[in-house]
Amino acid sequence: MATIKVLGYSGSITTRTVLCCLKEKQVDYELVVVDPAAGDHLQPRYLALNPFAVVPTIQDGDLTLFESRGILKYLAKKYKGQGTELYGNSLSEEALVEQWCEVEGQSYNSPALAILSQIVFVPKKGGTTDEAVVELNVEKVGKLLDIYEERLSKSKYLAGDFFSLADLQHLATTHYLVTVCGKGDLISSRKHVKAWWKDISSRPTWKKVTEKAP
Amino acid sequence: MATIKVLGYSGSITTRTVLCCLKEKQVDYELVVVDPAAGDHLQPRYLALNPFAVVPTIQDGDLTLFESRGILKYLAKKYKGQGTELYGNSLSEEALVEQWCEVEGQSYNSPALAILSQIVFVPKKGGTTDEAVVELNVEKVGKLLDIYEERLSKSKYLAGDFFSLADLQHLATTHYLVTVCGKGDLISSRKHVKAWWKDISSRPTWKKVTEKAP
Repeated sequence: MATIKVLGYSGSITTRTVLCCLKEKQVDYELVVVDPAAGDHLQPRYLALNPFAVVPTIQDGDLTLFESRGILKYLAKKYKGQGTELYGNSLSEEALVEQWCEVEGQSYNSPALAILSQIVFVPKKGGTTDEAVVELNVEKVGKLLDIYEERLSKSKYLAGDFFSLADLQHLATTHYLVTVCGKGDLISSRKHVKAWWKDISSRPTWKKVTEKAP
Repeated sequence: MATIKVLGYSGSITTRTVLCCLKEKQVDYELVVVDPAAGDHLQPRYLALNPFAVVPTIQDGDLTLFESRGILKYLAKKYKGQGTELYGNSLSEEALVEQWCEVEGQSYNSPALAILSQIVFVPKKGGTTDEAVVELNVEKVGKLLDIYEERLSKSKYLAGDFFSLADLQHLATTHYLVTVCGKGDLISSRKHVKAWWKDISSRPTWKKVTEKAP
């Protein structure tokens, strides 16, 4: 079987998430560096694979896929029975995984990235952090984490008592919120969220992904 | 088998999408009206099922689910082999369905809703439409539809030559863009997008859902 190629770079949030998933599923892969900082994502050869000009893209034999959350689902399905079961073990568990994956994609990701953008990317481009935007989005994430806190008081992980894609999808953005953005209090001020974060961010697969990345 | 209960209301974009999916899968359901305009979504009984206070929520026996896109996936999986196959017929087709579902959720939904909000919801609440916001988001949707146009020049539907969840997820928001918002030119100015929209919006299931709704 051909090795899965991941076109992306280790500093990208979504590439890291896909790499972590591959490690959880114990799947060999080859990382082909596509670095947006170097303009690699705008090369016609890359745009032919991914018209959205973002990383990552994967190639698995003849199949080319973009959209990291879709890639995660593909990997979890293709390698069912190998490595960590990231979809649970029944249709009901899988449904709850999908539900919490959507919560991340629809409600968590946007305000978390807005904070990261204001604190890291805007100054990097010579701009000034808009503190009001940071505050607004910290409030949004906080309200959402109140719901997580309630949920995590009843189950160890988001979809149930098993680590799943839903938890995995939170790793990279939360890592940046806690480390680079100095917003660790969003996590540590909530007992169950704190325990959940400690657990999922200690996974050996995630540690491997982060230790190699900028 | 217990009938699936859909807690929502027929005027809601996401409730309509779920109802259309149920009809495609030829599944009987009971619509239990939860009308946000009447504050039903803030009742403790509803919040106990869905802490996000949005519609719809479904109940299938003991299983309670929210997040409409997650609900669609659950229905498509549970009723595999019944009604329309909304995930295609192979792992590769399913992967492409997931990919285009994510494009809708991550890139199409937000600017489309921003247009709808400015043109419909803001004036309804006594405010004034911000034309600059409308213009910015029309531009975003247009750029995205350029990518769809290219894709749909190669396959009849987004994920391939079969109608799928990815197409279904676009029905409700696009319906409002074309009808209420008067942004039909976004669709009709692109040959393949226009043919795709004509095809998917003509599905008998969707027609049934829209004829009953405000």
